[in-house]
Amino acid sequence: MKKISESTIRRLSRYYRSLEHLISKGTETVSSDQLAEIDGITSAQVRKDLSFFGTFGTRGLGYNTKTLKNQIGEILGLNKPWRVVIVGAGNIGRALVNYEEFEKQGFRVCLILDTDPEKIGNNIHGLKVQDIKQIDELTGKGKTDIAVLAVPAHAAQRVADMIVNAGIRAILNFAPVSLKVPDHVQVKNENTAIEIEALSYYLANS
Amino acid sequence: MKKISESTIRRLSRYYRSLEHLISKGTETVSSDQLAEIDGITSAQVRKDLSFFGTFGTRGLGYNTKTLKNQIGEILGLNKPWRVVIVGAGNIGRALVNYEEFEKQGFRVCLILDTDPEKIGNNIHGLKVQDIKQIDELTGKGKTDIAVLAVPAHAAQRVADMIVNAGIRAILNFAPVSLKVPDHVQVKNENTAIEIEALSYYLANS
Repeated sequence: MKKISESTIRRLSRYYRSLEHLISKGTETVSSDQLAEIDGITSAQVRKDLSFFGTFGTRGLGYNTKTLKNQIGEILGLNKPWRVVIVGAGNIGRALVNYEEFEKQGFRVCLILDTDPEKIGNNIHGLKVQDIKQIDELTGKGKTDIAVLAVPAHAAQRVADMIVNAGIRAILNFAPVSLKVPDHVQVKNENTAIEIEALSYYLANS
Repeated sequence: MKKISESTIRRLSRYYRSLEHLISKGTETVSSDQLAEIDGITSAQVRKDLSFFGTFGTRGLGYNTKTLKNQIGEILGLNKPWRVVIVGAGNIGRALVNYEEFEKQGFRVCLILDTDPEKIGNNIHGLKVQDIKQIDELTGKGKTDIAVLAVPAHAAQRVADMIVNAGIRAILNFAPVSLKVPDHVQVKNENTAIEIEALSYYLANS
């Protein structure tokens, strides 16, 4: 498959949500114009994004919502369950154990780890916090697909190294630092402060 | 000022963090090559982004870290404190009341609102949850700059309308829906599931 850009993948996730919403309302077909309107982008962009993966629509009729949702889900890898370990049982980690959007899209939080003896053993929404020292045996041999890194900045690189050593190839990083990882490991950074800074830019310049 | 792209603003936020980190280590000057390396982008991109706002560097010497940090901070509007209201006292709202990265960059959470009588009156990190019905009097007349929307999807548009009616012009939306707002209101969507889907795309296609 051709390499597709991060922004295209993001838009596919948005189309996927819009299609879920349309299906829940009983809508059977949707045009690129309608999808564009919902997601606030141009219909040419929608058609370009979708044509990238083969042509799905029927001229004059648009796309079948269920078919298109399944096709996008397959591209995004949402047709299988992914097992997620949350590393860090602070505010963010705790919020994510119970995050409905993860569950809904097939991301199953099956493990939560921490270093703090005060936290180890605590129960968070039915999941017991375990010692990060056990990461290899708890996540090894393909038992976990994705790690969510939710530890303080100063500990992030060290914990990331442990995650990589345990054989996990995908990290969602909430720590406000750039992680150094080998090429075969993919990191996505989630930093809510960066999103809010885009708003402060808007307020300061409008 | 020329309109700059969202991705440029995001990169400025990342440079800002890297500069903070360099300053904390006592580093006084940085080249575009070094900034590029930290943030995993090309040095040409760094120079292009920064030149957009005037030329800051000195040929052969690079940029003074403190000066550059202050200049980027000013562009991003981080030189003044922004008052933030969190709407929704669920997991995400509670995690954000105490989010260090907000506080550090000058975003002050001064109010948390909910609809649930069970939650109203509760104390979250020193802040009392108040009734969303009072949003106009509590946030009105410029008392609040930014609203963080952390309510379930089905309630999001209705609550967004209340936020807009209260005169707030910037919304950070955690609900997994596209909000309809007037042109003078800026919305940024924060959806952790979308970030994790980019990882599942990677795992499914590598």
